Amino acid sequence: MNLNEKTLKERIIHKGNFMTFVNVDVELPNGKLGNRDILKHPGACAILPFLDDEKVILVKQFRKPLEKTLIEIPAGKLDKGEEPKKCAIRELEEETGYIAKEISYLGKIATAPGFCDEIIYLYKATGLIKGKKNCDEDEFTELVVMSLEEVKEKIKSGEIIDTKTISVLAYL
Amino acid sequence: MNLNEKTLKERIIHKGNFMTFVNVDVELPNGKLGNRDILKHPGACAILPFLDDEKVILVKQFRKPLEKTLIEIPAGKLDKGEEPKKCAIRELEEETGYIAKEISYLGKIATAPGFCDEIIYLYKATGLIKGKKNCDEDEFTELVVMSLEEVKEKIKSGEIIDTKTISVLAYL
Repeated sequence: MNLNEKTLKERIIHKGNFMTFVNVDVELPNGKLGNRDILKHPGACAILPFLDDEKVILVKQFRKPLEKTLIEIPAGKLDKGEEPKKCAIRELEEETGYIAKEISYLGKIATAPGFCDEIIYLYKATGLIKGKKNCDEDEFTELVVMSLEEVKEKIKSGEIIDTKTISVLAYL
Repeated sequence: MNLNEKTLKERIIHKGNFMTFVNVDVELPNGKLGNRDILKHPGACAILPFLDDEKVILVKQFRKPLEKTLIEIPAGKLDKGEEPKKCAIRELEEETGYIAKEISYLGKIATAPGFCDEIIYLYKATGLIKGKKNCDEDEFTELVVMSLEEVKEKIKSGEIIDTKTISVLAYL
């Protein structure tokens, strides 16, 4: 069955700080008219940094949309035209203050495919050496070191709910 | 360290089909002014339906934001005021045509906490009996049955990239 939806007309509704809200008239697979709200996002990368065989570095960050401080793996948006691996190396140092001797690609996730085109590229970082923590001006974070077992427990208990942090475990 | 960001002013930029784009002036933890774009979403539920001990039902659906057909677990938005478990029961029947004798809560995920308040409540459904498939008017899907092992392989190979489908495995 062909499930595709053809674009008939696309309207830019609002350009935000880094995302654009778009509305699209589509032709549905049955030939009828449909309408989709789409949030265009630059994409991102996220990194699981290993301090040793067991311990990983996570980041506590206040997330305004949820009015809550979450525990997440370090992550950040792609700069325009930036290659995901470069972004991973940059964000790892900016957010944790570490440089990785090895950084390997694990896989990618679509975080909200129903309404947003964000793809997050997932990486594993090992062989960490001290670099320079240097968050964005409006970014305030706190590092947390825990074992992979503790991460899994905190997922089961509901203390970790961030989906990129949960998803990255599937690729190890 | 207090990482909270206090709301100074919130503006509704655009009310879409089911999401609202909001812009918020915040006071950052260091007292400076920050600005956040936030997408308000009603929340959703997603269900992993087991046909037997090994086989699960997934859904193929064209996702306009990515211009691609994805393989995902059945899911759907919460109706206004709807209890997540009710939503899971409803969406399971609408999307797959099955009613579950047992439906149990697994956990919840924040899909895009940096810019969106969407929470997806995850459920496991067993003891499936035939009901009536009845998708929304603008929703066209195709069912796919595969073993849990095949799901894991398709994640590793990059054929399944949907984050709720990847995340749900962490709770089994």
